[in-house]
Amino acid sequence: MAMFDNKEKTNIEALGEFGLIKHLTDNIELVQPGTIKGVGDDAAVLDTGGKRMLVSTDLLLEGIHFDLAYVPLKHLGYKAIQVNLSDIYAMNGIATQVTVSIGMSSKFPIEAIEELYEGIYIACKKYGVDVVGGDTSASKQGLVISVTSIGYAHAEDVVYRNTAQEGDLICVSGDLGGAYVGLQLLEREKMIYLENPNIQPDLEGKDYIVERQLKPEARKDIVELLKDIEVKPTAMIDVSDGLASEILHICRQSNKGCSIYEEKIPIDPMTFETAREFNLDPTVCALSGGEDYELLFTVRQADYDKIKFKMDISIIGHITEPASGCNLVTRSGNMHEIKAQGWNAFKPKEAE
Amino acid sequence: MAMFDNKEKTNIEALGEFGLIKHLTDNIELVQPGTIKGVGDDAAVLDTGGKRMLVSTDLLLEGIHFDLAYVPLKHLGYKAIQVNLSDIYAMNGIATQVTVSIGMSSKFPIEAIEELYEGIYIACKKYGVDVVGGDTSASKQGLVISVTSIGYAHAEDVVYRNTAQEGDLICVSGDLGGAYVGLQLLEREKMIYLENPNIQPDLEGKDYIVERQLKPEARKDIVELLKDIEVKPTAMIDVSDGLASEILHICRQSNKGCSIYEEKIPIDPMTFETAREFNLDPTVCALSGGEDYELLFTVRQADYDKIKFKMDISIIGHITEPASGCNLVTRSGNMHEIKAQGWNAFKPKEAE
Repeated sequence: MAMFDNKEKTNIEALGEFGLIKHLTDNIELVQPGTIKGVGDDAAVLDTGGKRMLVSTDLLLEGIHFDLAYVPLKHLGYKAIQVNLSDIYAMNGIATQVTVSIGMSSKFPIEAIEELYEGIYIACKKYGVDVVGGDTSASKQGLVISVTSIGYAHAEDVVYRNTAQEGDLICVSGDLGGAYVGLQLLEREKMIYLENPNIQPDLEGKDYIVERQLKPEARKDIVELLKDIEVKPTAMIDVSDGLASEILHICRQSNKGCSIYEEKIPIDPMTFETAREFNLDPTVCALSGGEDYELLFTVRQADYDKIKFKMDISIIGHITEPASGCNLVTRSGNMHEIKAQGWNAFKPKEAE
Repeated sequence: MAMFDNKEKTNIEALGEFGLIKHLTDNIELVQPGTIKGVGDDAAVLDTGGKRMLVSTDLLLEGIHFDLAYVPLKHLGYKAIQVNLSDIYAMNGIATQVTVSIGMSSKFPIEAIEELYEGIYIACKKYGVDVVGGDTSASKQGLVISVTSIGYAHAEDVVYRNTAQEGDLICVSGDLGGAYVGLQLLEREKMIYLENPNIQPDLEGKDYIVERQLKPEARKDIVELLKDIEVKPTAMIDVSDGLASEILHICRQSNKGCSIYEEKIPIDPMTFETAREFNLDPTVCALSGGEDYELLFTVRQADYDKIKFKMDISIIGHITEPASGCNLVTRSGNMHEIKAQGWNAFKPKEAE
């Protein structure tokens, strides 16, 4: 009746999330002619005979990805959808359908699960996406949310991670680090609340970064903007694990290097100021924080004029030959090798 | 910092799984022109411009859907795939891709997660299905498995639940009740083992029903057979929750009644005999046990000659007008109303 042989064991934390996925998926043999791209990008790409279909899936677990002490269920439902749609947009596609599976303690009242679904439906309605299926189950322990999203793009429009070219400009939408700093704020208020439930949380004037954490918006608008101005990125990924982790994915998979300029990384003033209050380096928050769900993409230099004045897009560096590595050029002009400090769901997250 | 307002609360168990899904999905408005069928069948049906795409998703949670005390991880991975592919076959489609998300304690050794994936890959290889994506995360509590499967069918081949016609023959593949009786056996051996770990489990001669529980096979072969003999079912569903629950889905959604003949329900001799050992009625095990993953379908009477001698298909009754209700005709000739006693993941499962 033994569950499994425990004699030879290797700790999962040692590999980390990406290492583990690589370890488990390295030997997959694809047999379906319709499978254009399997594991290894933001979404799988399938040939349906017409347009390319994009499929992405995320699992959100209580205690790992969210804390119900400060995440309202409606926001959680909203975010669960955004996180997933973001992967479709990161392929330069448009999301059309989702399936949503929920595992929830039978002790939750119906009203709680309704709140969760309310957030799910609001997000879907806003982004024009249909909920087409799912599964609902009791859970013995925490809340479990699994979302799979489906989208489409014309075959020639699909953008992968592994196609950045030397000399390409590195761009990012919106601003970075806010979701992480917002999380620090919520964690602090939770601690204060646990010590003294009579003290109300003090989030005044911090709406923007709290919203960045609790209610992120996937950048469908950026995909539409790029289409309007006729710029097809050469590579793209969404920023779920922090800028450092994402640019390394693009560079490693494209077999290229990069230079990122610290002074060009877009950081909102409130993120900057609040990071300082927590004695955190705002640049480190942008590089390693994650959960911003912005789009990180590369474009040909020839497209520079088309994007240089776009308010919501920052050019933060360029792609180099692989030998020069992946580097951050600091404000003082020093070069630092970029290391992935992204989200590792198998290790407790720490500020650096 | 309150999680949600707890003032008005309704217990989830009161609604049950199907009631809850209906409650949460009743008001979904579909906006995508590509969404042919959303929630409410074995899989969603999407128009991709060519063939119809089928999408289904299942969430499996430790302590609810499986018990690691007697389910080897390799079998669990295998079963997680079969359960999901079964939904695609139940739409008369062929499965082509899956995504697999796993949440697992970081205390599990890599070798354990490898075993799980080995079962997943064996199942996918056997059924010609590609693993194209997924998500891997630590889990604070139990093991979480979420699988989404994708398949295709020509538009004219898709079979729904709600299209059974009066006079149609009701057919089922394979045999029923075995998975449930196998579960009773495993539960008994677990109890004996917990009381005295020196006693080895006694499963001798019970391979068939233990396999029915631990290693079910989705009936791709039946979909292929029906195509070969040119029979298109008028309605179809897979038997995940027991014959009673499934035939009620077909009848209610088709607005019809049915007569099922107890003596025609296919039950393997080992299932029959072992049910008796447990003082269980074998017919009740077939009606309410679930997890057999056979296909339950209706065909026109005109197709009778094509299926009557197919070894692995039993004709167990026929569809009637709605006014006569859904009835089981017992061996002694009595009529009993069929009630759903299927799997309710929000209530502990009990033998009746």
